Amino acid sequence: MNNLMQAVPLAKSYLLLNHGPVVLVGSAGGDCQNVMAASWVMPLDFDPPKVLLVVDRSSMTRKLIELSGEFSLNIPCVSMASQVLLAGSLSGRVGDKMVRCGLKLFEASCVAAPLVSGCVAWLECRVVPEPRNQEKYDLFIAEVLAAWCDPAIFSEGRWHFPDAGRRTLHYQAGGAFFATGESIQVTDGIG
Amino acid sequence: MNNLMQAVPLAKSYLLLNHGPVVLVGSAGGDCQNVMAASWVMPLDFDPPKVLLVVDRSSMTRKLIELSGEFSLNIPCVSMASQVLLAGSLSGRVGDKMVRCGLKLFEASCVAAPLVSGCVAWLECRVVPEPRNQEKYDLFIAEVLAAWCDPAIFSEGRWHFPDAGRRTLHYQAGGAFFATGESIQVTDGIG
Repeated sequence: MNNLMQAVPLAKSYLLLNHGPVVLVGSAGGDCQNVMAASWVMPLDFDPPKVLLVVDRSSMTRKLIELSGEFSLNIPCVSMASQVLLAGSLSGRVGDKMVRCGLKLFEASCVAAPLVSGCVAWLECRVVPEPRNQEKYDLFIAEVLAAWCDPAIFSEGRWHFPDAGRRTLHYQAGGAFFATGESIQVTDGIG
Repeated sequence: MNNLMQAVPLAKSYLLLNHGPVVLVGSAGGDCQNVMAASWVMPLDFDPPKVLLVVDRSSMTRKLIELSGEFSLNIPCVSMASQVLLAGSLSGRVGDKMVRCGLKLFEASCVAAPLVSGCVAWLECRVVPEPRNQEKYDLFIAEVLAAWCDPAIFSEGRWHFPDAGRRTLHYQAGGAFFATGESIQVTDGIG
């Protein structure tokens, strides 16, 4: 944990993922730890909060999640785009992947999976075993046990993005991302 | 179908959802049709393409999807933000919901669920029955049978967004959206 982290109430943690940002998935098991990039992640339920994550069966992250039953979701920002692309391109079986990606890790509060420094929000997750989904669809359901944010970027249930480099990212393809853009507040009355 | 629609190759259709936009879910069954807004939607597989969609059990859309086994995913843009919010707020049991939302519908190519005019992309989907996911998690898996785009906005597997009003949307909460923002191309070599 560090000074830039503030706890997000669990029932509000879905708001960290609601707008569809790319994430870095942290995992650990045995003597190994890894971080990979993932776009196929979203909320599944509010309270207790659950998330969905698709993890390819050939990845080291998949092996570590199956070993430990845990993972972290780390929400990176524009200034980290190169590192996110590397984390999504290099295999965790490369021994010095974290060094080559330029990612620094730190301990989570209640899972063994590491958290990634410099991100704007973090979720600590425990897998809800659903063997058919995991085997047939590479799909994991997990409960969010703890959630954290940089309070300069997310507070009172809203993203603020005061700084272009700290905006969240959305992945397109081929090394192309989008930054989370302009905020649009609809004020029309309902009905 | 209309002149502004171009077919998207099925194996590339995941790119329409990869960046996490909000969607309008079209559904039909019996004499009814409906459109609701949803943020909890994402790709599940590439080829054949599959998607995940969370649909609350109290909604009319849920009833229509269960009746028909089909739905459409319509990707709206910034100029439609007020309509998207209304579609996510009003129940489909309101008889004139489409009129109140200001949404115009048209026929899909291979599902009974309608498509929504003015959107920038469309996916036609058939449910892959997974009763445990549907009942326990309100979670639907579906195969994408057809996909379409406005070729001014999406072509050759990439989003372009030449016009601010035709950017896609990401939902935050409380009537607040984000537009899909600046494109960031990472060109660093891997390794």
